[in-house]
This record gives sequence, C-alpha cells and structure tokens, in this order.
Amino acid sequence: MSTDPLVIFTPSGKRGRFPVGTPILTAARQLGVDLDSVCGGRGICSKCQITPSFGEFPKHGVTVHEDALNAFNAVEERYDRIRGLKAGRRLGCQATVQRDVVIDVPPESQVHRQVVRKAASTRAMIMDPATKLFYIEVQEPDMHEPTGDLERVARALKEQWNIENVSAALPILRKLQPALRKGGWTATVVLNKGHRDTAYRILDIHPGFHEERIYGLAIDLGSTTIAAHLCDLRNGTVIASAGVMNPQIRFGEDLMSRVSYSMMNPGGDLEMTNAVRDAINTLTTEIAAEGNIEPSQIMEAVFVCNPVMHHLLLGIDPVELGQAPFALATSESVSLGASEMGLSSMNDSARVFILPCIAGHVGADAAAVALSEEPGKSDDLVLIVDVGTNAEILLGNKERVLACSSPTGPAFEGAQISSGQRAAPGAIERVEIDPATKEPRFRIIGCDLWSDDDGFMEATKGSGITGICGSGIIEAVAEMRIAGILDPKGLIGSAEQVGTSRCIAEGRTHSFVLHDGTADGGPLISVTQSDIRAIQLAKSALYAGARLLMDEMDVDTVDRVVLAGAFGAHISPKHAMVLGMIPDAPLDKVASAGNAAGTGARIALCSVEARQAIEKTVREITKVETAIEPKFQEHFVNANAIPHATDPFPHLGEVTTLPEVNFNQQKGGSEESGRRRRRRG
Amino acid sequence: MSTDPLVIFTPSGKRGRFPVGTPILTAARQLGVDLDSVCGGRGICSKCQITPSFGEFPKHGVTVHEDALNAFNAVEERYDRIRGLKAGRRLGCQATVQRDVVIDVPPESQVHRQVVRKAASTRAMIMDPATKLFYIEVQEPDMHEPTGDLERVARALKEQWNIENVSAALPILRKLQPALRKGGWTATVVLNKGHRDTAYRILDIHPGFHEERIYGLAIDLGSTTIAAHLCDLRNGTVIASAGVMNPQIRFGEDLMSRVSYSMMNPGGDLEMTNAVRDAINTLTTEIAAEGNIEPSQIMEAVFVCNPVMHHLLLGIDPVELGQAPFALATSESVSLGASEMGLSSMNDSARVFILPCIAGHVGADAAAVALSEEPGKSDDLVLIVDVGTNAEILLGNKERVLACSSPTGPAFEGAQISSGQRAAPGAIERVEIDPATKEPRFRIIGCDLWSDDDGFMEATKGSGITGICGSGIIEAVAEMRIAGILDPKGLIGSAEQVGTSRCIAEGRTHSFVLHDGTADGGPLISVTQSDIRAIQLAKSALYAGARLLMDEMDVDTVDRVVLAGAFGAHISPKHAMVLGMIPDAPLDKVASAGNAAGTGARIALCSVEARQAIEKTVREITKVETAIEPKFQEHFVNANAIPHATDPFPHLGEVTTLPEVNFNQQKGGSEESGRRRRRRG
Repeated sequence: MSTDPLVIFTPSGKRGRFPVGTPILTAARQLGVDLDSVCGGRGICSKCQITPSFGEFPKHGVTVHEDALNAFNAVEERYDRIRGLKAGRRLGCQATVQRDVVIDVPPESQVHRQVVRKAASTRAMIMDPATKLFYIEVQEPDMHEPTGDLERVARALKEQWNIENVSAALPILRKLQPALRKGGWTATVVLNKGHRDTAYRILDIHPGFHEERIYGLAIDLGSTTIAAHLCDLRNGTVIASAGVMNPQIRFGEDLMSRVSYSMMNPGGDLEMTNAVRDAINTLTTEIAAEGNIEPSQIMEAVFVCNPVMHHLLLGIDPVELGQAPFALATSESVSLGASEMGLSSMNDSARVFILPCIAGHVGADAAAVALSEEPGKSDDLVLIVDVGTNAEILLGNKERVLACSSPTGPAFEGAQISSGQRAAPGAIERVEIDPATKEPRFRIIGCDLWSDDDGFMEATKGSGITGICGSGIIEAVAEMRIAGILDPKGLIGSAEQVGTSRCIAEGRTHSFVLHDGTADGGPLISVTQSDIRAIQLAKSALYAGARLLMDEMDVDTVDRVVLAGAFGAHISPKHAMVLGMIPDAPLDKVASAGNAAGTGARIALCSVEARQAIEKTVREITKVETAIEPKFQEHFVNANAIPHATDPFPHLGEVTTLPEVNFNQQKGGSEESGRRRRRRG
Repeated sequence: MSTDPLVIFTPSGKRGRFPVGTPILTAARQLGVDLDSVCGGRGICSKCQITPSFGEFPKHGVTVHEDALNAFNAVEERYDRIRGLKAGRRLGCQATVQRDVVIDVPPESQVHRQVVRKAASTRAMIMDPATKLFYIEVQEPDMHEPTGDLERVARALKEQWNIENVSAALPILRKLQPALRKGGWTATVVLNKGHRDTAYRILDIHPGFHEERIYGLAIDLGSTTIAAHLCDLRNGTVIASAGVMNPQIRFGEDLMSRVSYSMMNPGGDLEMTNAVRDAINTLTTEIAAEGNIEPSQIMEAVFVCNPVMHHLLLGIDPVELGQAPFALATSESVSLGASEMGLSSMNDSARVFILPCIAGHVGADAAAVALSEEPGKSDDLVLIVDVGTNAEILLGNKERVLACSSPTGPAFEGAQISSGQRAAPGAIERVEIDPATKEPRFRIIGCDLWSDDDGFMEATKGSGITGICGSGIIEAVAEMRIAGILDPKGLIGSAEQVGTSRCIAEGRTHSFVLHDGTADGGPLISVTQSDIRAIQLAKSALYAGARLLMDEMDVDTVDRVVLAGAFGAHISPKHAMVLGMIPDAPLDKVASAGNAAGTGARIALCSVEARQAIEKTVREITKVETAIEPKFQEHFVNANAIPHATDPFPHLGEVTTLPEVNFNQQKGGSEESGRRRRRRG
C-alpha cells in the first residue's frame, strides 16, 4: 500500500495519493479536479489559487499538519508582493505535497464553476467555451534546424497543452513574428476550437502573458428586437446586456412582409442584410462600452434567430422561406468569421456561430430554447412557448419532442401597439386594475415601486413613463378582461358601460387610459381597441400553434407550461392564461423562463459540447409546419375570444351590452378547454 | 467457373467477368480501369466514351461478336444527334456487356492519362487535382422532413460520389438555392479537397450539368520574373503560358535590397505586397485571354517562390528573413482563399496553395524543384541547379538530399544586363561565335531560324530583335570566351587584340556587338564589360553554393547535373560549363530541365498526393545556410575566373595582352576542378 501523502480536494471530495513534491495543480489534474490554469503551471497567471486547510478532519480521516505543503516559495512571494495573494492562499502550481493535506478550491479558481447571474436568468453555465486563452513558451528559431514560427507555436501548444491541429489565417501570420519577439518567445494565444472537428484556429496572439480577458456575445436576433448579452469567456458571467430594435422593421413588421419585400425589390434582401448588420455593429460597440471593455476583446458571437432572420443575417435571399416547401439554404449550424459577414465592430478575427435551424419556419431560436429548456430531458410533458414576433413552440418529454413556430406578429413585443415600446427603462411592464374601481396601477422597468406607491413619481423622473412593453400589454389586456372593461369578444366598453371615465371614445370604439402624463408634457398611455385586436390575433396564433402540437402528440392537456419571452419581457403566467395565450394548465405548473432563446445562445457561447448536443437534438425533433396545416386555421379562429374561464380569481362581472362585431364562427376557448379531453393515446 | 461474359480493357489489359447487362463503366470501375466520368454514369457528360473491338483476338483468347454489347440506346442516340459521337464509339455508362468483349479506352476518356506538352517540359502528369467537378442529382426539399439545401447537396455527394465532410462558404450558400432550382435539382459542383485533411470545400455550383472546364494556374513567382502556366484541371494540359516582370524590382533588384526597403520604409512591405498582387492579377487576366477562357474559370492557383517573395505575397513583413536566424513566419505549405490575399482576377472562390519553404533562404521554389526532379529518388548523385535571381541548389540521392540557395542576382534572367530582357519573343536566346572570324550568329525566341539563315529578317519582322534573355547571355559570354574575345579573367579585348571591329571601346573597357539594328531604328545589342562582371558574380555565387553542398556531402564530384532555369530560359549545358557555373561533369551527364520550379508547381496543381509528398520530402531535406558559411565566400572568390578548362571543344587561342585588373587572390576554377578530388567518405 502506498505511503505517499494523501491529497483531498474540497468541495469535490476527490482524493488520491501523490509522491512528495507533487504540485497541487498536477494532483488536481490527475484527479480531474476542476482547478483553473491559463499559464500551464508556470506561476504567471495566478488562476490556480487554492487554500490548504489544517487540523483534524474526522470526516476525511486525516490530520493536516502545518508542514503539509512546502513553504511559500519565491514565485509566490513575488506574486504576493506585486499583485497580492489573499491570506491563506497558495498558487496551486507552486505549492507541493509534503504530507497528507486537505485542499479547498475556491469558486474563482474553478473553471466550470456555476455562475449565478444578477439578472433574471439564473442559469448555471458549464464552462467549455470554444474560444480560450493559452499561454505558451515557444522555442526560438534555429538556423540549423529551420522551422517556421507558426510551426513552433503549434509545437508549443502540442507539448504544453496537448492541443493539435492548429492553423492560423493570414492576419495572424502577419502578427505572429513581432508578437513572439516582443514577448521574448512567450505568448498568449486565443484559440477557437471547431465543434465538428478537432481543429483549432488561432484567433489572436499577444506577446507574453496576456492579462486582458476575452469576451463573447450571445445575440438573440428577433424580428422586432435584437438582444445581446456580453459574456466573459472565462467564466460565463454576463457583464452587460443591451438591446436595439431590429431596423428591418422598416421593410416589414413581420417575417412574411420582409420576404415579400425581398421578392418585390431587386436587392431588397441585401438592404435588409446591411440594415441588420449595421445594427449589430452598433449594438456591439454600445455593449462593449457598457461593459467597459474594448470591442476588439470580443472574440466570438453566437446568434439565435428565426430562419428568415438567419438567412438575411447571412446575406442569403430568404425567398425560398416564403413559399412551400420552405427550404432552408442550410439547416445545420453555421460557423464562420465575423468579418465574412460584415460584423466589423468586434475583433477582426472573431468567430460567429449560428445555432442550427429546425425547419423552414422553426429556427435557431427554437433550437436555442430547446438547448436552454431541454424538453427532451423532461419526465413530464412540457409545453414551451417562446413569445416573440414569431413564437417558437416546443412540446415534449423524454420520449419525443415536437416543434413549430407561429406567426404572432410583433404585438407581444410592444410593437404595433399604440403606446407600445420595447422593454427599456420607462416602459410599463406590470399592470393591475382594481375590479371595483377600474383604477389601474402599474410598474415601469427600472423602478421597483408601483405607480400608486409614495415616491413613485420622483423615482421615475429619470426615465419618465414612456410607453408599454410586451409583458405590460399582456397584463393590461388580461386585467381589463378580469375587471370587466373588456367583453369576451375583446371589445372595450364605453365609460357608461364600464363605469369609469378612463374609457374614452375614439371614433366608433373606445380606449382605456392607463396613464395620462400630458399635464407634464408626457404621453397619454392607453390601450386602444386596435391594440386589443392585435393582441387577440397574436394570442390566437400562439394558442393555435400549441394546440397543433398537442394534436400531433395526441394529447388534450400538458403537465406544465414554460413561458419564455424576448429580452426583458417576463410574462406573467396568470395573465397569459387569462388571455388564453396558452392551453389550460394549473397555474402553479406555469413558469416564466425569461429569454430562453437568449439563454440558449449563452449556453452555446460557453460550451462546445452544447453546440454538439444541440445539433444532435435538432435532428431528433419532429417538425410541424403550421403554415400548411388546415387545423391551424381552425384552432386560430376558435381561440379569438378572451373567455376568462381560466381566471383563477373570482369572476368579476361581464359587459354584455356592447355591439356585436364580426368574429365569425367563434367557439370559445373556454368551452374547448372546459371539456378537458383525456389523452387519446 | 463463371460463365459470365469476359470483358477485356485495352490498353491496360485489365480483364474480368461480369453478369450480362453490366454497364462497361461499372466493369471499368470494378477493375480499376482508368475510365473518366463526371456525371456518375447518367449519360450526361460523355466523358466515358469507349470503343468496342470486334473479331478474333488470339492474344486475348477471345472472339468478339457484333452483339457483344447491347444495341445503341436512346440516351446514346440522343447524345449522338445533339453532340455527335465518333464512329464506333459508345458511352461506357450506356453500353452493357452481353458477350465476351474487348473494350478500348481512348486517351481522351482516361483521367490519369499522361499528357505530353507541346512546349519544352514534356512531363507526364498524374492527375489527382485538388479541385474537380462533380455532377449530382439532389433530392428535392420536403416540408415534412425539413433539411437545408446544402445538407441535401452533401448527401448527394456522399451517396453518388462517396465524398464526405463537405462545407460551403457564405458566397456559395448564397448561390446554392437558385442554382439547384434552375438546374431542376441537378447541379455540377466544383469541389476542392484539402491535402492535410479529408475535408472538401464547395468552391462553386452550377445548375445542371456544367459543360465548361475549370482551370488552374501554376505560378513561379521569382524575384525578377513571374511565370505562369494555365492548366486544364481535368487533364493537366497547359493551354497558355505567360510571364511578366516582377514589379517589385523598383524596390530593389535582389531579395536583400527588398528586405532592406521594408526595414527602412514603414509600410514598404505593404507597397511591395500590393505591387506583386497587382501584377499577378494582370497576369491572370492576360493568361485567361490568351487561353481563351473566362478568368472566373480559374479555380485554383499554386505558387512556388523564394521565402522573401513568399512572405511579401502573403503580406508578411520579410524583415526576419533579412537577419540570422532567418526565421520564416511559416514553413509548411499554405492553403487559403485567393480573395484573402487580394487575388481578385480569378474566380471569387478560387483557392491558393503555396508549397512549403525548406528554410529561411531556401524557398517553396526549391521545394518545387525537388518535387519535379526528385533527387531523393535518384540512384546516382545529382546536382540540381535552378537558375534565377536567387539560385536554388539541391544535391542528393536516395540516401540524403541537401539544399541551399545562393544569391546570384538577376543577371541570369537578363536583368542588370545592358541589352538584357526577359525571355519573350524578340529576345536572343541562342548565340554562336565563329572562333576564326569572331562573327556571331543567334536565334531569337519565336523564330526557328538562325540569324544568318535565309529569310531570318523577314521571319522576325513581327517581334523585331529586341534584346538578350538569360539563356542568351550565358551562351554569349561562354562563346566569347571560347572565341578568345574574353580572357580568363573576363576582360573583353579591344578590336585590335581580338581582331574584329565588333569589339568597340566604351570608356576604359570594351563591348562586343552581337547585333546592330540601329540602321533600321532597332537597338544595338552588345555585351558590355559590366555585363560580363554581372555574369561572373552570378556564376561564382552559383558555383560556390554547389561546392558548399558538395563539401557538406563530402564529395568532390557529382554523377550528373540538372540545369533548370526560369520561364523560357533553357540553359545550354555546354555553355554553362564553359562559363564555370557548375562543377565539372561529363557533358553528357549535364541536362537542361527547363523551368523545374514551374513544373513542380504544375505537379502540385494536378495532384493532391504530390502536395502531401512534398510536405514530407521537405522535412527530410538537410538545409545548408550559405549566408553564414565562411567557405561560401572562399568558393565564391575562387570561382570568379572563366578558365575555359571545361571546354569540351578544342581550345581556340587566348588573349594575353590585356591589362591586368584587380581580381585579387584569384584561384582558377580550372585548377580546383582539375584536381578532381575523390570522395572523401
């Protein structure tokens, strides 16, 4: 039996015996303990910091003496003097095993550590990014054994990091020789690993040990909104988030009108391509400024988007996506240089990864939702709805996953709504209406107070109250229905009918005033009858898509519902159900997942394995094409009313004296859902 | 024993039995008979034409009856009607075996056929080009099984050609969908295969079956001359050759002065990069016009060049190549897109392959010479000298190959010579001088007559007599020495000393007039004393390099010598030896190989396997660095005289009364070589 000292790592509990003098970093690597290192154990990067624990450890069955490790050495003293080392910390590459020892790996020394975001999407990220930094020491050239500098860099990566199959594009070849000489034959290379092969590209090379971090963008490119997260590629931390409107809106609000624009206008696709690329370039510059980094530190961008956005981003004419059989130019993931697609604001060598599309109408955004929410790993049957201008809908469990998309239009993103705006400070995001008084109160993005709280007006002076965003309009419409301001067909009553002066006549219909800021020069924020119509159309499309998948799965109910929305819009499950956006489900089985597509993009940004996994997953998903399915129309028409049958709260009166409108063949969703058919299978 | 019919192919003699109804193409493939096909046997491409032979074949032991094959079928009839089929020909994919048959595969139906060039370099090319055309039938998209068009193209290549791992860059993705629809779900793709991996790139896609051929350029990028061959990528045929001066000459005649220019002038390297790329673009357009093809049909270019040209072509500052240890940025072969390096005249998706460099002073041109002349496969010890502004010298046999380069300057290419010009119509390329009368006669490029033949002046009216090219100056100087116009030290005698009025005084030295065209407004073409000096310096450098390799190999003699020269310059072995360019060898063991570097480029253009082979070969070559070897200087000084001891013809008098010049420490090459040391090993 070995009498070598025992090394026990916490929190992993991994343990093993190692010869006296073994560096802790070496022991950690051999045991598979997650201990970071950029410089490969040369005492330069300080990423491998550990904390030895001393004393009795009955749980582990060891006593750790003060001399369990070697003494603080010169490298550590120098590092402590220049940078400072926290009390009790050692560099894992310098500390060596002398006697039995318990070593704690602090969270910041773990590469694969779980990162908890400040913002809504508290997602644990497994860090395995395609793009990483590697410090190398390169052999100097020898006239008598002539080899190229690139070949010696490749050899260093092989010998020092066990990385093979390395290539460099021309711009890197140009930088290579000066960088190596400036760094005294040491350098930090930025390497990008392919997800399909074992090839690595050198994206950049810095002389010596490079202190600066590298970053990636996770971009959810929607028809209406472009939302981006700037992530630290070492640990997945989101250091900034930003969004802009998609400037393609001027060519058409929805996808099909943009495809039409391309068909009707020669070069129209190129106009739209240039517009969206310009917007992404601007967004890149802005988010870098917000994150206080240089745009050139952005080495990678991962995109998720629907198929039309996908093709327009790549500069491919989307005409085929506008007509059956809706053929994609390519359905697999796309990996290319940012410069190839005119994304000039990030690093010149930055890479772009676009998730695979599922089908001609079901895009990389749906794939990202699948990556984030993992319906294929669910024991119970889950319906996932990603609300955007085009809704992505997934239904499935461990056995089978179905996907479709549904053209909801941009209403859920606050577009095509009279007082609508994108989710940004000043936008109303939460609404409550007192069913008795019909008085509304609301909250805006950027302020935690309700509008009837003390100090609300002072707190919102900065942003003002500017409009209503997607989640706000959903709540407003649902609350109006609950409060009896809307009838089941979606008509707003008059002031007399409803009993509040907030209902004002506009032509032959009425609007409901949420907030009148005109006295202070602000806007009048109201919900108009045409806003209601837009929401009705959107929610009917969403509901119809979900029902279609349920038909295909041959079920009448689902076990749980996940509501995901575009950037910043966290949909209230209660209000979504009041509105009839989704099939009935117990309210406690309806969860809001924030921007699931964006989260999927972040996961792919942080993990090569996730890229491989989603390619496989996408191939296994059953695609359902809504556009050609006659039942979709049927479900759509049936879903138009707002029956309020799913209201989990007491029913609060109904307006019945409103004039009839021409919603033909209505069949209330309430009746439909009331029947609660059993699974047929 | 099988009673299936016997199929015998000629000229290969391969034979086998096949079931009745087997297409001849199928039989050929199973037997490994070289029978071409682009369309994969669909009766579209007509590449698989064969000729059945009928009658008694005692040699093969068969009798072939008229009904040995099926009757001419509808596909063949249609093809014959539209395109015409030579009498007796059948399409190999349509003709099926019925009884014993002898099938002749005509040369034009053989892919790997050996091509004999019209011009000097009669080189058999093994066709295995990286870039080829493939006709495919692509499955139409299916809404219910959605896959991208690219993925279905990849599947077609897998199923119909057994080609996997296919990718397409963005510009091809943009063309893909319209091309497939225009071609009715058939297309011809241009595929480029990597030489290091098994990956294929789609370089272009054409609707349906594409009739047009694709071409490649083999470019020998010299310091002084850029020479290109335009090759048919189906069969390796050279359809046009062209050359231009390297415009970088204005930044410096030789390599080191260009490196100096880069060091002294910020951005100087970029100026030179742009100059050479512009010249290549112009050359590409011109050679395409000469070959009567569209420049966009050029899908690939292979470059060979010395290291400084290599770096400047790629836009890499060559500063490291100007100082020890002469580190290359990269020594392995380089494969990249033509557009990445500003080569915009060929197809937008064209690929560039640059052969590997051997060392900091021994470039891809030397690698190309090794590929062409294969010293490593030679039983006897061969010295290969590639004459250019920088001479590439290889010495070796099966056991060991050495390489070095030597800075000869541009004299051998007709530059820095008073009447010098590049090898082009009108340039004097052959010279003879009558030893008795001292009267010269010559031939010019573009005319087979000698200048004293009847009709010479009429025949050369088109080009005129414009100057003297590299091979011409070598012959002129050697003939001047043989005729006693030059003394051993290289001085031209006066009219009185030599006995001809063609020796004219110019300052304190003399010139020898080869041709006086001034009466007709043409040039006076003479060899001046400074021309002689330039040639002496050049040949001394060349000789010294060769001697250095012989020292390293520890031999005093070589078994044979191969003289290779830049584009169009075929060096006369006799004159090269008279001049003392090369160590002594029996004249019948000295061969002229034409442009061996250019031939090496063509071989790499036509064969992926050759690319793999030369990478391996280069790693095995021993590199000798002339710049730091003291013995190089010694050999150089010793080689300055033109002793004429190697003249295989009777010695014809010597001028002894010329004034002494200050060539210090001269030690005649004749004495050196006269000693004929034995191999020391």
